[in-house]
Amino acid sequence: MSELRLASEKRLRLFSGRGFPELAEEVAQELGVPITPTSAYDFANGEIFVRFEESVRGCDAFVLQSHSAPVNKQIMEQLIMVDALKRASAKRITVVAPFYGYARQDKKHRGREPISARLMADLFKAAGADRLMVVDLHTSQIQGFFDGPVDHLFALPMLADYVGSKVDRSRLTIVSPDSGRVRVAERWSDLLGGCPIAFIHKTRDPRIPNESITGRVAVSYTHLTLPTKA
Amino acid sequence: MSELRLASEKRLRLFSGRGFPELAEEVAQELGVPITPTSAYDFANGEIFVRFEESVRGCDAFVLQSHSAPVNKQIMEQLIMVDALKRASAKRITVVAPFYGYARQDKKHRGREPISARLMADLFKAAGADRLMVVDLHTSQIQGFFDGPVDHLFALPMLADYVGSKVDRSRLTIVSPDSGRVRVAERWSDLLGGCPIAFIHKTRDPRIPNESITGRVAVSYTHLTLPTKA
Amino acid sequence: MSELRLASEKRLRLFSGRGFPELAEEVAQELGVPITPTSAYDFANGEIFVRFEESVRGCDAFVLQSHSAPVNKQIMEQLIMVDALKRASAKRITVVAPFYGYARQDKKHRGREPISARLMADLFKAAGADRLMVVDLHTSQIQGFFDGPVDHLFALPMLADYVGSKVDRSRLTIVSPDSGRVRVAERWSDLLGGCPIAFIHKTRDPRIPNESITGRVAVSYTHLTLPTKA
Amino acid sequence: MSELRLASEKRLRLFSGRGFPELAEEVAQELGVPITPTSAYDFANGEIFVRFEESVRGCDAFVLQSHSAPVNKQIMEQLIMVDALKRASAKRITVVAPFYGYARQDKKHRGREPISARLMADLFKAAGADRLMVVDLHTSQIQGFFDGPVDHLFALPMLADYVGSKVDRSRLTIVSPDSGRVRVAERWSDLLGGCPIAFIHKTRDPRIPNESITGRVAVSYTHLTLPTKA
Amino acid sequence: MSELRLASEKRLRLFSGRGFPELAEEVAQELGVPITPTSAYDFANGEIFVRFEESVRGCDAFVLQSHSAPVNKQIMEQLIMVDALKRASAKRITVVAPFYGYARQDKKHRGREPISARLMADLFKAAGADRLMVVDLHTSQIQGFFDGPVDHLFALPMLADYVGSKVDRSRLTIVSPDSGRVRVAERWSDLLGGCPIAFIHKTRDPRIPNESITGRVAVSYTHLTLPTKA
Amino acid sequence: MSELRLASEKRLRLFSGRGFPELAEEVAQELGVPITPTSAYDFANGEIFVRFEESVRGCDAFVLQSHSAPVNKQIMEQLIMVDALKRASAKRITVVAPFYGYARQDKKHRGREPISARLMADLFKAAGADRLMVVDLHTSQIQGFFDGPVDHLFALPMLADYVGSKVDRSRLTIVSPDSGRVRVAERWSDLLGGCPIAFIHKTRDPRIPNESITGRVAVSYTHLTLPTKA
Repeated sequence: MSELRLASEKRLRLFSGRGFPELAEEVAQELGVPITPTSAYDFANGEIFVRFEESVRGCDAFVLQSHSAPVNKQIMEQLIMVDALKRASAKRITVVAPFYGYARQDKKHRGREPISARLMADLFKAAGADRLMVVDLHTSQIQGFFDGPVDHLFALPMLADYVGSKVDRSRLTIVSPDSGRVRVAERWSDLLGGCPIAFIHKTRDPRIPNESITGRVAVSYTHLTLPTKA
Repeated sequence: MSELRLASEKRLRLFSGRGFPELAEEVAQELGVPITPTSAYDFANGEIFVRFEESVRGCDAFVLQSHSAPVNKQIMEQLIMVDALKRASAKRITVVAPFYGYARQDKKHRGREPISARLMADLFKAAGADRLMVVDLHTSQIQGFFDGPVDHLFALPMLADYVGSKVDRSRLTIVSPDSGRVRVAERWSDLLGGCPIAFIHKTRDPRIPNESITGRVAVSYTHLTLPTKA
Repeated sequence: MSELRLASEKRLRLFSGRGFPELAEEVAQELGVPITPTSAYDFANGEIFVRFEESVRGCDAFVLQSHSAPVNKQIMEQLIMVDALKRASAKRITVVAPFYGYARQDKKHRGREPISARLMADLFKAAGADRLMVVDLHTSQIQGFFDGPVDHLFALPMLADYVGSKVDRSRLTIVSPDSGRVRVAERWSDLLGGCPIAFIHKTRDPRIPNESITGRVAVSYTHLTLPTKA
Repeated sequence: MSELRLASEKRLRLFSGRGFPELAEEVAQELGVPITPTSAYDFANGEIFVRFEESVRGCDAFVLQSHSAPVNKQIMEQLIMVDALKRASAKRITVVAPFYGYARQDKKHRGREPISARLMADLFKAAGADRLMVVDLHTSQIQGFFDGPVDHLFALPMLADYVGSKVDRSRLTIVSPDSGRVRVAERWSDLLGGCPIAFIHKTRDPRIPNESITGRVAVSYTHLTLPTKA
Repeated sequence: MSELRLASEKRLRLFSGRGFPELAEEVAQELGVPITPTSAYDFANGEIFVRFEESVRGCDAFVLQSHSAPVNKQIMEQLIMVDALKRASAKRITVVAPFYGYARQDKKHRGREPISARLMADLFKAAGADRLMVVDLHTSQIQGFFDGPVDHLFALPMLADYVGSKVDRSRLTIVSPDSGRVRVAERWSDLLGGCPIAFIHKTRDPRIPNESITGRVAVSYTHLTLPTKA
Repeated sequence: MSELRLASEKRLRLFSGRGFPELAEEVAQELGVPITPTSAYDFANGEIFVRFEESVRGCDAFVLQSHSAPVNKQIMEQLIMVDALKRASAKRITVVAPFYGYARQDKKHRGREPISARLMADLFKAAGADRLMVVDLHTSQIQGFFDGPVDHLFALPMLADYVGSKVDRSRLTIVSPDSGRVRVAERWSDLLGGCPIAFIHKTRDPRIPNESITGRVAVSYTHLTLPTKA
């Protein structure tokens, strides 16, 4: 009767795509949970094949894959893993994407463009994902693209700790690449003891045509807060 | 057989909620299309009733309602109008919301919050809307919240024209209320002949608790571009 | 790892909108379950904000809100609470609406009307509700409007007990306001020891136009059962 | 390129199940539209096969089938026809069911019952129906069971005409089988010149167990309006 | 509070349609689980009524019905049972169909045909089924027709055991009725110790019109493997 | 008002991914329709960007992309094009995939595998595709994987013509690579004047483990029909 058993298995199971197995190993060690053995390979024409080597029936599945290069293949592999889990009666499927692909295409800058960040959310939903877990999204609004819970984690505290341990904080200024990232710079500053903030303001020269990005931008640094006296 | 005719009527039809009938009248005049006669009233307990007084079968319906106060009632009335149109065989239903309610709740600032801007998009989809038409969204990402086409219109050129006609442009500075709006200020500046830009930078005083917003923010103006010489 | 724990919390959690907090308190006491602390307030333009102050991950959520006046606001607040619960990984969400708004608009009386009672069911589904719990629906068919389980509770036995304790039953007649409610009157009669039933029959005067409801109806009481002999 | 042509054919096309071909023939003659030639037969195990013998690409399809006995087969045949139309690129599919099966199971009388009238609406939606056209529904609320337009037609005027031409109206009384049908009786009375109305009131004898329907009901006629004087 | 209890019941419950109660009884005995008492009968016009006589709230439901003749009625009864379970808050619903109806219509042989095997999967999904359990599907691709897990069981090992116990294996040849079933014949041969395989190859006589199936096919046996020497 | 015009444009528009532009050019010439100008490029991390350079509002869009290598990128590009078309108010979107990727993974060979061919159909549906057009599917059942019309075209007549013009038909035998393809071989034979058919029958050597495919298969040719006498 083993194949007919109830949907009561609650075991957390960790699955890893082939994109970044070292990270999955570290996560597995941190959690004290093994990575579920998985066969995955590419056919001659590039199609991906996946099969799990242990029963996943009723499990609480976390599928880890960072959407690093080649981004389209990594996403497709994760979609295929989700499909296989759904069809094998996993109880709940959480897509874990430390880097969420296509996040920067989160709006139409001009007409007749896609909103690929929403499309990705829809594709994962269509494949069978119940939940997303992502890190440092390009914009927080992307949480609203998925029809279900999104756990939005932040790496900033860990990154700030690391940077703070490597530099002389009294000589540090956080520079935002444009005005849209000033708030992120402020969070860095808060975590690093209130160091000064500056940001780059790009002014377009109206005599140079729009297409030429490099020639048209005059960069100026603007200090929002003054450096601390030494 | 008039009631059984084919789904071939292509007539644009304009419908107006009770929120801002003057705007609907102006739109109707601009388009040369009458507003479809509609009965709408509130029952004693506040429930809204709507009925269209002409056949809407096969029409291309545009339902105009700005989500002004009382915002929940305005939204509900528009949802009910969409439901009635869907059930009366309208061919396509476009929700026109010059002000789109709940746009500012477009992300979770902290855990256990709604993303109400996405919820509104889902409610209109559930009611039967095929398309949204909105003006000056709080953030462009909201376009991605609706599962279908969104026409995002901009009032900024008209507003800039109006302001430009009222002031001495040589003495004008565009001030952004925070760094997140600097890009909007730049668009104003472009439309007004390149006048200088400044923005307000709020610094929180770490000695004052987070809840007290007013006491904790030190405001400073930062000029991004210098005033034009007189 | 507390934020990554399994979807295994089964705790019943009670949530209350701001419509009728006294009822929620009584329900909470009856169940021996506290109401989950919730921040809820209105922005200046009437938009509702909600945040739960404790983790709701994996809980079995019951969201209590009666759709009393202002009905549209009460409904919208409950929808927003459901959205927030869905996005915070609640395991199951039950909408409890002692009075279910728009129940009387459960059919099209004439063409081009909405079926708002179905629309409400669709809105709650779109927001993320898994189940409805309602009391004394206007018509039982409304159970079929929701795509999921509906628990239809009846207050009639409690009401009949109360009425029975206040009156001289031997002098009681149950009067139905129209023929469509005769069956409800019968249930009252059954619970009150078989007291006689009457109902009002409204006859429209064909010489008075349809719009004038008050003038056109001639009311007559019809006794279905004779009064018990004293 | 004939098979690749645009979705612009607007032709109304009539399709008939095998349930009641005579009715379909009459409808076709009334509309001046032929019934689209269709192969339909049963396999040895009762499975139904359907194929349309002409292109239906881009047509506005009306699929006529009354859910007469054997009701489950008639419904299934219509569902299969809808599926075939959807897959053959029909532009719009209207299910025409003069008798809509399972309409009486429009609510749960007790717990753990189906709401089959809603289920039927969902099945037709799942198969690909865009619209329903039905006659004299058991209750009007069933319109709200379908997620789309429902054209609810009434045969009552035709039936009343026919009855009126056969009887001596001055001796006519309309009798409703129970209080729930009094309104229908009123509509009959209106169409037949205001003849008197009566209805049957069934009283259950509490000494006879509930299961025995026949023994427990005491029938009494109640005249709501007095017979017109001769 | 018994009716309001949490969705935590995990009990497997077995439900049986009226199609093949003997099989359900055997399954129940094998599992040591009783069949949940169910009222089911047909109304005069053939409509099916179903009610479960015990609470099914939170159960893990398995609904057993083989789609034997009359196939449309058996399918409809199972759909109605699924609807009743969904509305009564069953936790998970598995449709068990030892014979899955309409499996042979799994593709369009020519234009304007249904794909009824997909339609059936969609109907069960629409009714509320979470999972399918089927035996020896006509083609394995049908697993992909259902949007969810499909447990595809095989009766072949049991059938082969039975056949092997009845015959002299040294004199056995497995004959496939056409080339499309050669792989099934191979599996039989493997299970029966490698007995020879043959298959029937039908050649159509081009002089006889296509419609006449019987007259046009010349049957020839082709031995794929030689008979084992005695 | 050009941007607000009615959804009445019926123009067929052809769109081409970057996978095989030469084919798109040939199709465009055959149809006498230009390919809609499209900007498409890859960002540094491999993410694809697409924008159409002309209005597509209300058009009947055909999006041509063969899923050749790199297959995942080609599929993703087509999905993104569909998303952009949906959001730009295209009236109908047909995905044209001369080679449909992942078609061979059309069933689970063993447990815990994906059904990627169904997944692809679901992804295109989620992106917004209304219809699929494919050539020579691996199995015809894949038509049933898409929830909508599928136009299944066959290249076989053209290929047979070409082959027939290059060879001495009297010396031709059609060889099927296994029994599952015998029917395709028969269609080739029919188109080439009834030339003989053979097929390869692979026998596995039970002494060699399953993993070693090459060593385990004994190939034998079986002539189903005798060569024509010269």
